[in-house]
Amino acid sequence: MTQTYQARIYVTLRPSVLDPAGTAVQSGLHHLGYDTIEQVRIGKYIELQLSAPDQATAEQQLNVMCDQLLANPVIENYTFDLETVDLETLAA
Amino acid sequence: MTQTYQARIYVTLRPSVLDPAGTAVQSGLHHLGYDTIEQVRIGKYIELQLSAPDQATAEQQLNVMCDQLLANPVIENYTFDLETVDLETLAA
Repeated sequence: MTQTYQARIYVTLRPSVLDPAGTAVQSGLHHLGYDTIEQVRIGKYIELQLSAPDQATAEQQLNVMCDQLLANPVIENYTFDLETVDLETLAA
Repeated sequence: MTQTYQARIYVTLRPSVLDPAGTAVQSGLHHLGYDTIEQVRIGKYIELQLSAPDQATAEQQLNVMCDQLLANPVIENYTFDLETVDLETLAA
């Protein structure tokens, strides 16, 4: 019996890594008149569904997926949250 | 007297818009052996700090920034959350 989980993964650049895209967006916002904007950092937001026997297994699988494919551990950090998906509710 | 807010903005493709990058990541995860992965969607996660007199003003400014620069309202949705930043705590 497996359970389906909805995962939301947030991948961010490590604080020590320069973020030229964030700097460009900050400059663009300043040009639009939003002078108080600071510390713009741009990351990735990934949504996916996975099936696993329990939440601990799902978290362990997500950690491996992030390390192997979704994030670059040399320059990026990641966090995620998980919630169960009730497929019967979706189908109703 | 203005307050500094930390904003976290999540930009996602509208459900009706195809996401080739998400499809590629899903295929990659399947090749790594994670066969249960479905519904992969890739969006942007933006962090920034802004100053505003109150939270309602900050939210209103963020909505305009998202519509004008951070998201493409034709194909993307966005949500954000805001929390106050205590600058004295940061400096301590």
